[in-house]
Amino acid sequence: MLSLNPESIRKLFEQVRAGKLSPDEGVERLRHLPFEDLGFAKVDHHRALRAGMPEVVFGPGKTPAQVAAIFTRLAKHGKNVLATRANQEQFTAVRKSIRAAKFEEAARAIVLRRDHKRYGKGLITVISAGTSDIPVAEEAAVTADLMGNEVERIYDVGVAGIHRLLAHGEAISRSRVAIVCAGMEGALPSVVGGMIGVPVIAVPTSVGYGAAFQGMAALLGMMNSCASNVSVVNIDNGFGGGYVASLINRL
Amino acid sequence: MLSLNPESIRKLFEQVRAGKLSPDEGVERLRHLPFEDLGFAKVDHHRALRAGMPEVVFGPGKTPAQVAAIFTRLAKHGKNVLATRANQEQFTAVRKSIRAAKFEEAARAIVLRRDHKRYGKGLITVISAGTSDIPVAEEAAVTADLMGNEVERIYDVGVAGIHRLLAHGEAISRSRVAIVCAGMEGALPSVVGGMIGVPVIAVPTSVGYGAAFQGMAALLGMMNSCASNVSVVNIDNGFGGGYVASLINRL
Amino acid sequence: MLSLNPESIRKLFEQVRAGKLSPDEGVERLRHLPFEDLGFAKVDHHRALRAGMPEVVFGPGKTPAQVAAIFTRLAKHGKNVLATRANQEQFTAVRKSIRAAKFEEAARAIVLRRDHKRYGKGLITVISAGTSDIPVAEEAAVTADLMGNEVERIYDVGVAGIHRLLAHGEAISRSRVAIVCAGMEGALPSVVGGMIGVPVIAVPTSVGYGAAFQGMAALLGMMNSCASNVSVVNIDNGFGGGYVASLINRL
Amino acid sequence: MLSLNPESIRKLFEQVRAGKLSPDEGVERLRHLPFEDLGFAKVDHHRALRAGMPEVVFGPGKTPAQVAAIFTRLAKHGKNVLATRANQEQFTAVRKSIRAAKFEEAARAIVLRRDHKRYGKGLITVISAGTSDIPVAEEAAVTADLMGNEVERIYDVGVAGIHRLLAHGEAISRSRVAIVCAGMEGALPSVVGGMIGVPVIAVPTSVGYGAAFQGMAALLGMMNSCASNVSVVNIDNGFGGGYVASLINRL
Amino acid sequence: MLSLNPESIRKLFEQVRAGKLSPDEGVERLRHLPFEDLGFAKVDHHRALRAGMPEVVFGPGKTPAQVAAIFTRLAKHGKNVLATRANQEQFTAVRKSIRAAKFEEAARAIVLRRDHKRYGKGLITVISAGTSDIPVAEEAAVTADLMGNEVERIYDVGVAGIHRLLAHGEAISRSRVAIVCAGMEGALPSVVGGMIGVPVIAVPTSVGYGAAFQGMAALLGMMNSCASNVSVVNIDNGFGGGYVASLINRL
Amino acid sequence: MLSLNPESIRKLFEQVRAGKLSPDEGVERLRHLPFEDLGFAKVDHHRALRAGMPEVVFGPGKTPAQVAAIFTRLAKHGKNVLATRANQEQFTAVRKSIRAAKFEEAARAIVLRRDHKRYGKGLITVISAGTSDIPVAEEAAVTADLMGNEVERIYDVGVAGIHRLLAHGEAISRSRVAIVCAGMEGALPSVVGGMIGVPVIAVPTSVGYGAAFQGMAALLGMMNSCASNVSVVNIDNGFGGGYVASLINRL
Amino acid sequence: MLSLNPESIRKLFEQVRAGKLSPDEGVERLRHLPFEDLGFAKVDHHRALRAGMPEVVFGPGKTPAQVAAIFTRLAKHGKNVLATRANQEQFTAVRKSIRAAKFEEAARAIVLRRDHKRYGKGLITVISAGTSDIPVAEEAAVTADLMGNEVERIYDVGVAGIHRLLAHGEAISRSRVAIVCAGMEGALPSVVGGMIGVPVIAVPTSVGYGAAFQGMAALLGMMNSCASNVSVVNIDNGFGGGYVASLINRL
Amino acid sequence: MLSLNPESIRKLFEQVRAGKLSPDEGVERLRHLPFEDLGFAKVDHHRALRAGMPEVVFGPGKTPAQVAAIFTRLAKHGKNVLATRANQEQFTAVRKSIRAAKFEEAARAIVLRRDHKRYGKGLITVISAGTSDIPVAEEAAVTADLMGNEVERIYDVGVAGIHRLLAHGEAISRSRVAIVCAGMEGALPSVVGGMIGVPVIAVPTSVGYGAAFQGMAALLGMMNSCASNVSVVNIDNGFGGGYVASLINRL
Repeated sequence: MLSLNPESIRKLFEQVRAGKLSPDEGVERLRHLPFEDLGFAKVDHHRALRAGMPEVVFGPGKTPAQVAAIFTRLAKHGKNVLATRANQEQFTAVRKSIRAAKFEEAARAIVLRRDHKRYGKGLITVISAGTSDIPVAEEAAVTADLMGNEVERIYDVGVAGIHRLLAHGEAISRSRVAIVCAGMEGALPSVVGGMIGVPVIAVPTSVGYGAAFQGMAALLGMMNSCASNVSVVNIDNGFGGGYVASLINRL
Repeated sequence: MLSLNPESIRKLFEQVRAGKLSPDEGVERLRHLPFEDLGFAKVDHHRALRAGMPEVVFGPGKTPAQVAAIFTRLAKHGKNVLATRANQEQFTAVRKSIRAAKFEEAARAIVLRRDHKRYGKGLITVISAGTSDIPVAEEAAVTADLMGNEVERIYDVGVAGIHRLLAHGEAISRSRVAIVCAGMEGALPSVVGGMIGVPVIAVPTSVGYGAAFQGMAALLGMMNSCASNVSVVNIDNGFGGGYVASLINRL
Repeated sequence: MLSLNPESIRKLFEQVRAGKLSPDEGVERLRHLPFEDLGFAKVDHHRALRAGMPEVVFGPGKTPAQVAAIFTRLAKHGKNVLATRANQEQFTAVRKSIRAAKFEEAARAIVLRRDHKRYGKGLITVISAGTSDIPVAEEAAVTADLMGNEVERIYDVGVAGIHRLLAHGEAISRSRVAIVCAGMEGALPSVVGGMIGVPVIAVPTSVGYGAAFQGMAALLGMMNSCASNVSVVNIDNGFGGGYVASLINRL
Repeated sequence: MLSLNPESIRKLFEQVRAGKLSPDEGVERLRHLPFEDLGFAKVDHHRALRAGMPEVVFGPGKTPAQVAAIFTRLAKHGKNVLATRANQEQFTAVRKSIRAAKFEEAARAIVLRRDHKRYGKGLITVISAGTSDIPVAEEAAVTADLMGNEVERIYDVGVAGIHRLLAHGEAISRSRVAIVCAGMEGALPSVVGGMIGVPVIAVPTSVGYGAAFQGMAALLGMMNSCASNVSVVNIDNGFGGGYVASLINRL
Repeated sequence: MLSLNPESIRKLFEQVRAGKLSPDEGVERLRHLPFEDLGFAKVDHHRALRAGMPEVVFGPGKTPAQVAAIFTRLAKHGKNVLATRANQEQFTAVRKSIRAAKFEEAARAIVLRRDHKRYGKGLITVISAGTSDIPVAEEAAVTADLMGNEVERIYDVGVAGIHRLLAHGEAISRSRVAIVCAGMEGALPSVVGGMIGVPVIAVPTSVGYGAAFQGMAALLGMMNSCASNVSVVNIDNGFGGGYVASLINRL
Repeated sequence: MLSLNPESIRKLFEQVRAGKLSPDEGVERLRHLPFEDLGFAKVDHHRALRAGMPEVVFGPGKTPAQVAAIFTRLAKHGKNVLATRANQEQFTAVRKSIRAAKFEEAARAIVLRRDHKRYGKGLITVISAGTSDIPVAEEAAVTADLMGNEVERIYDVGVAGIHRLLAHGEAISRSRVAIVCAGMEGALPSVVGGMIGVPVIAVPTSVGYGAAFQGMAALLGMMNSCASNVSVVNIDNGFGGGYVASLINRL
Repeated sequence: MLSLNPESIRKLFEQVRAGKLSPDEGVERLRHLPFEDLGFAKVDHHRALRAGMPEVVFGPGKTPAQVAAIFTRLAKHGKNVLATRANQEQFTAVRKSIRAAKFEEAARAIVLRRDHKRYGKGLITVISAGTSDIPVAEEAAVTADLMGNEVERIYDVGVAGIHRLLAHGEAISRSRVAIVCAGMEGALPSVVGGMIGVPVIAVPTSVGYGAAFQGMAALLGMMNSCASNVSVVNIDNGFGGGYVASLINRL
Repeated sequence: MLSLNPESIRKLFEQVRAGKLSPDEGVERLRHLPFEDLGFAKVDHHRALRAGMPEVVFGPGKTPAQVAAIFTRLAKHGKNVLATRANQEQFTAVRKSIRAAKFEEAARAIVLRRDHKRYGKGLITVISAGTSDIPVAEEAAVTADLMGNEVERIYDVGVAGIHRLLAHGEAISRSRVAIVCAGMEGALPSVVGGMIGVPVIAVPTSVGYGAAFQGMAALLGMMNSCASNVSVVNIDNGFGGGYVASLINRL
């Protein structure tokens, strides 16, 4: 955090040593340096850590033109770019300037992939309870994929048909991290958490009706998981699930 | 429902026929008959249906003397009597007048059993997720037992250790009705519901802390069960679970 | 649950006995058998239990084409098929390939009926509090009917006009199971539960406004029913109510 | 509301007329009169309306000495005095200075009755669903009684035994106002409301457990009553129920 | 309630007296009489109480044709008819068959008035906090007017400008019942309740945003009113407010 | 508050002095004076305090014609006028009669500025966490600006990039009052509150999804701020934030 | 914020100029300076702003010995010290080492006052709705008093007796800031807010029962205040109210 | 998952090959093998993964004797044992049979440490917002320590004094995983999440009062974190935080 940036501060010291600035002037100039120049940059600006991290834009509430403009600007950094919760119109607008962008329809994501390096050290499995949870699961999967991970999708294995889940036991047991997306009662992360000894990122979804309360029932269920290896992100936050899992898989 | 009680109404008709009452007097007397005499008794007062139904007293908030007094009065009908959520002091008071009463400590229940007939036609399994759910599960089990059912207890088989549950698959599959008690995320009824094709009565418990919200998380989870054969009773309502299951098992 | 499937496993034993496989190879092959071949099928896949169970598709959020495709695929199994919360457009699409499908408008359900056998042993009454609850009640009624039950509908008998309910006392008292649908204060299941000695499945509906909170008031009311024979399914879950009642009525 | 108090204002006018004050001085003095002298007293300070209105002190959180001091001060006005949610210790303290005070144990109320006049024009029935609701119902009944009303208590007539309620149909139909106290699902006011054509004051109680949420389930149920003649006061507010009913019964 | 209907029952007694029926046959026939013939009609079917009560239809969710059909059927009884939460299209449809129907736009109500008798004994004031609360207040006012009451409207007198409310003090103090409609913090009923000694019916409205939670903040505020003469109906339930106030004003 | 209006009251005194009215008639007339004539005007009607206060109209739910009519009427007082949550159509309508009105698009506000005096004594900073919070922040900024304050905007400095916020430390430390707008977790006011020793007005926004619950998460976060100089207004209430800050800055 | 501390940084520059350190060593040492030495002290550490600010300890959950130890340590800075939500035992412990400490019983606060200077520029009024709100109001009053403000207490002026509040109109209108404490429906801040043109700090209290939900009803009411000059702090947070008001009054 | 256990199944194959069992008998015996013998053990039973995992007992609601009995039984496996939320009495009981057990008072934990191996690959920092959050933070720290991790504690660095947090920037930036515990507004994880590029496990605590709602405000705040590397466990679940962080740090 406090790793000061030598480029600008050192110059100050050199000018003082050279007698071009008095110590008082040095203090004064230091005071007016822009924040980044003071070295209070975020650690994750650092090269090593930022490698492979996509730039991200959140689609909802933005016009196609706005998404395209932001996407294009982010693309200038030469990195992977991801637009989440995007729609076809937004993609069409992006496509005009960024020909290499692709639309992952199931994930509702616009993706620009330039860095194909594998950063993750193991397998990330993305597991969903029902078919309606797939958009959230796909958002997680596309995010993890774009961040350089091997991803395996295991969908429609809800707890009311536990045999379907168990049939994928072998694949699940190979996970280095698991992302589990479920709406309604949100019980799947607990079951998966009990099957494996690695971290499970639970993503509640707003799937359901009535007492599902737009994902609140699933969220509460996951917070109360009786499996100790489960932690939770926001309702429908597939991107967050994929992001956290990717960070873990890089370690 | 409208099966009128011949004893009192018929007398009116006979008195009218005998000229002892005019039709107008008949109508007038009919109007003043007590409700029960008009035959508007509840159907379940009827003999056949009431057989084996225990009389019940709810313990909390009552002094030992009050519980003893009510228990003793109910015991006069010659039926099974059940005091739920009772404590040792209440039992000691009951015991003084009803020597045959027993205290089911794990179920927090005082039980007087006189009718040992088997009314239930099949097996009721009572399944609990964790050891902390056992008091509620036992309340359900004792209720079902007292109502004349074969009961099998399968405890501590929460979803985070799905293999423990599966290990009881054979017993569970023999159930005619299952009662599933779970706190925290309340996921167990969904899993059990998916394993068997018979009715599952889910009992959320107040076990847990923090976002468990005294059973609300479990309740919401169960309401949103993805298994279609699950219906739910109130939080910690082991008696209700045992009662509903017993009614079903009599059919 | 653990009733192993002889077809595939027995062959392994025979091959080992015949010396075609070594014991080690037997273990290895066993390990790679698909899950179903290991016999871990759900009990309710079993013939006897599955008889008369409809295949079900949930309509909302699906295009007419999607509903038609799923419906047609499910229809291939030769069973009854039910699409819930469906609309006229979805029906029109289904109708093109499945001429025998019918649209139950009041229930918002597309129904294909091939198995007309009576599986239920008694009468299921479907009771609704107000006319606005009828779509949910009809969903329950159509489900129970399709699952082979005698169904009687008693609608618009809310608790604020208790005499209307009592006027149906005789029909209600003949029920083997009752399904009670109510929104607003959700009081009807308690009253019905007190009238009869058989299981009552309560279905809260989202009917009402203001403090009805989309069915939450009704749901809470039903969870707290002072009648012990009431259990509850999710808000507006007419299908669930009909399904649970049908399972009970088969016993 | 704007009925000015002649005593002080008139004097000003007289002094102005007598030339002792200039008009300007009159305005200036008027400006500095205390609020009450300006006549902005509450309408219900007026004699006729206040007749028979008890002075009230709320017991909880006050020491016996505090309750006794307030009670004694209020008693100086020569009116009826009521201490609600009081306990035996508070009563003992009150009794020392006010010998005529009585403790209504079931209502948890200390009562001083001096005005025995009948102000209410008809019958107020106080109806409770269960025995646990009686303390709240008694608070309502004692309040209505102290405010000069004929009161009839009809207890333990919850909706799960509708025949018990109907058996009191004649008494209920004689009500000019009904107060209905119920916890759990809070359904009783709707049923009573449907039986009679007069105002029903619903008092939710905190009786119940689990999803009763300390009376919230009952409160929501009553807010959503399908009977149009029901209005609601706060949870456990027996005093409020009795007070509103008394005001209505005076009209 | 139990006021038996002499017409049908008396005939039975006469036939028994005449020897045309045996007492047993009398009981049997009695059992099969329709419920209404047994006299279990609602008290408010009775003439005196029902006089001036409008027939009511709730508009939302109904097509213009449906509203028109129901309205026309209700109009056949020769009474006042009211359609609440109605729109212009529904009115146009009603108007085709019932020329005398009028549309009260501010109240969103279709009104047919035939009985112009004054049933209420005093003044009902309808008070609203803001201009946005007027639709609910008008629904209350139109209801009270149609039920034969003198109604005075006092609008836009919210508590943040208490002087505006006080300026209407004289009119308010003449009320026999007050209906107070307020959204946002819902404080107005408490202030009005403190100004007058008569019953106040509080109607929370869904006016507001953010933490107003569609009227929940106002509802909770009103439930907790520090004025004892306040009782509350559902959010936006202007009809209920007008109805309860009218019943009180008839006493 | 009690500063009586000499115009009308003094005349009464003069008429009494002149013998044209008796003291009793004086009292009687006083009683019937309109409220304002009694001088119970709000303090903030007073000149000094009202200087620079804009007249305000809330846009949502009003037609363009309605907004234009109200805006035009308010403009007659010769003061600044503000329409909040307005749209382009409403502006177009306003513009027809008030040519000087301007549309602040980012703030969704129509503004008429005539009084350009600086009333605020120091700097008001308006700080927003994310770009999505800008509409609310702009509403606060435009309000504060229109009320005669120097305003500095510091946007997109959410707590997950604390260095961006710190980079504006100097500007923030010059604030006399700060308005901090944030959705999602609503943490920014606490951080800003800890950086400066002056009042911070926190405005929760409805930005976010899932467990953000339309601003409730941010609202709760801000209520629980560990910085003691934070107070909170309603969700999305940028106007309220700007108004309170302006009042403070005038002191 | 970024006003760098010359003492330590300047020395670095001087050492570099003197050739005692190379520029690289300067950067390195800069990097290891403690945070405060880098000048990133909080602005309110600054002398002028901190003058008269008390040191504060929160009493609940701490033993008397812990409170005494912390209080004594804080007292070493020579400033005013305040322990909130303290009890008699904690005071006795504090008193042993700090003889000058006093216990403000009504405010539940231990106070050490050394700085008697008047920092506030005008009057702070502390207004409470009921007598039960006084502990919170006193906490606010004692805090404001200790922070050097003229404080006037106006208690027991709830909205159901609006005349009592109006009777204090003159005092209220002299406020430079008002703190308004209210539980139950929390309506008082809106009324006060409408009476005056200065900032109102609303403090919801947990006074009430049932649907008061421990202050949530009051909190929501205040968030939705129709008076624009109201901002809100946490439930029962009298200290926060007094602190914010004091900051404003210093401006 | 499906890695069958050769020991028992292979014997079956050998017996079949040896002709001691027919294929049918093999299938039959296979069916009756205990679940574990079928190889459906949990993956984390596997040696490598389980190394260093403590056995855990949850203290609340258990008598000292019960805790001692469970602790002693778990200690027989020769592993580390942890009792969470334990008290001094429970420790005294444990100590009698397990002399090596220690009581970590700040963490409310009883610890038996036998395996001192370092399993974690990097540093886990445990960060708390306030001193009241320390018990939860310590539970996390003790758990992580017992699971073989290097742990650094950084306490009392809440967001309202951001400079205190920044002063620990260097230590925080060395974290491989961070656990952040905070009550009240729960903002700290977002700030920490923005400072570092590694996974952050957020633990909401029940610290606070009023609108903190026993940790719900903090929980919601954390779910809505604007930092993408944050995932959340249950309120006060320090153990869960430490457990998840340890799993991640092993990778």
